[in-house]
Amino acid sequence: MAVSSFPACVSELKGVILDLCGVLYDSGEGDGVAIPGSVEAVNKLKASNLKLRFCTNETQATREKFVGKLQRLGFNINVSEVFPPAPAAIAILTHRGLRPHLLVHDGLLPEFDGVETTDPNCVIIGDAAENFSYQNLNQAFKVLIELEKPLLFSLGQGRYYKETDGLKLDVGVYMKALEYACDIKAEVIGKPSQMFFQSVLSDMGLQPHEVLMIGDDLVSDVGGAQSCGMKGVQVRTGKYRPSDERHPSVTADGTVDDLAQAVDMILSHRGH
Amino acid sequence: MAVSSFPACVSELKGVILDLCGVLYDSGEGDGVAIPGSVEAVNKLKASNLKLRFCTNETQATREKFVGKLQRLGFNINVSEVFPPAPAAIAILTHRGLRPHLLVHDGLLPEFDGVETTDPNCVIIGDAAENFSYQNLNQAFKVLIELEKPLLFSLGQGRYYKETDGLKLDVGVYMKALEYACDIKAEVIGKPSQMFFQSVLSDMGLQPHEVLMIGDDLVSDVGGAQSCGMKGVQVRTGKYRPSDERHPSVTADGTVDDLAQAVDMILSHRGH
Repeated sequence: MAVSSFPACVSELKGVILDLCGVLYDSGEGDGVAIPGSVEAVNKLKASNLKLRFCTNETQATREKFVGKLQRLGFNINVSEVFPPAPAAIAILTHRGLRPHLLVHDGLLPEFDGVETTDPNCVIIGDAAENFSYQNLNQAFKVLIELEKPLLFSLGQGRYYKETDGLKLDVGVYMKALEYACDIKAEVIGKPSQMFFQSVLSDMGLQPHEVLMIGDDLVSDVGGAQSCGMKGVQVRTGKYRPSDERHPSVTADGTVDDLAQAVDMILSHRGH
Repeated sequence: MAVSSFPACVSELKGVILDLCGVLYDSGEGDGVAIPGSVEAVNKLKASNLKLRFCTNETQATREKFVGKLQRLGFNINVSEVFPPAPAAIAILTHRGLRPHLLVHDGLLPEFDGVETTDPNCVIIGDAAENFSYQNLNQAFKVLIELEKPLLFSLGQGRYYKETDGLKLDVGVYMKALEYACDIKAEVIGKPSQMFFQSVLSDMGLQPHEVLMIGDDLVSDVGGAQSCGMKGVQVRTGKYRPSDERHPSVTADGTVDDLAQAVDMILSHRGH
């Protein structure tokens, strides 16, 4: 299906970047569930001569805990291959001498253990879920509005995501709330930020045209990768909706049923 | 102070509309506190031949309870003179055959007692304060996203307001959150909606150029009134900030220290 629209450039590829949630697995209670065929698909990519990285906006757990969950689901994956927003945020804080007020999920807090947070001069929000109470959002607002130049970082800008028990509001919704409250524009760390994709490309040692991004989020994964010069393919799993295939501004370089199909097409085009 | 910038048209005035919170009183624990001189200022206006109405985005209590609070603070004010968003919203629901899912303050719920809310086909949000939990916002989002054409009404669109214990996020922040989550634009009921100001003018039986609006919110009170053809004066109480006097898009027709000063200037220009 949709074979005709698969990127013709596949034979020149040197690397692949995969989104995680909605591509490898569906989140939910406990560890969530692996999407059928995705464990084997990752193994096939690892056995090829393609470089492989994982790029995620996951911010509910530290990178170690999160990768541990993926390993329990059966994935052959290491911490050094996974790029979430929090470590990128810490690099920015260090570089710019910033002390954050954190409005994030309890599970992410250990990631910021070494970071100075007293007398904050910026605010960082992640997918805080239940921590997005009225009190906590008001507290983040008060920190911002008292700064001479309010500085807000958002770890991703998703609208919502799907868990096994239904749709959940994502961090982007609260980013918009604080942007409006303070009349400011947040700096997004994570997909679809170009700087974020560039840091992954730089780690791979590859040029954008040599790399294919595969994700379930048309705007953040596919559109973000394309704006960096990569090709972007969307899978029909996770948060995919049929209306994505007639989106007014983003058109995927290919659309496939799932990761297993995408990997088979990549490898068969390369003569494996 | 700022006498030179006071509207020159004062001698032709036939009516005055006052905002309430931040102009007559500061909200906070219990009934809040009257702003010095404001009780007498309202009495002076009532003793003049100017028509007087009160236009508020207050949505934490029914109109009756809210006016009772103002009376306890010493204000000579009646329910029929006060225009809040909720009664205007109910008129729209009735006219359009809509059944709302309500995300509002507990104190406002009795206002909607006669309104059908089962099988909702729209969402109404007001200044729900502590009721703006993650769970409640997610619930309102789920109602919206399941509608074929999501319909969101916001009772005002304020960014924040000041209580005696500090700044509080207002309904507009959550309106922006749900707008982004569902990729929609809310319909605002309350200031600065032109339709809302028009309904007050219509009750007064006056033309816009005959009426002066006095408020502490530069955009919502002053800008909203001006876009209807009224003059708008800002007081330096409530949520006033010095930066309002160099706002990029809204310029008040006058800026005064408080309501007492505004009323003295109006009445002295009229030869009282």
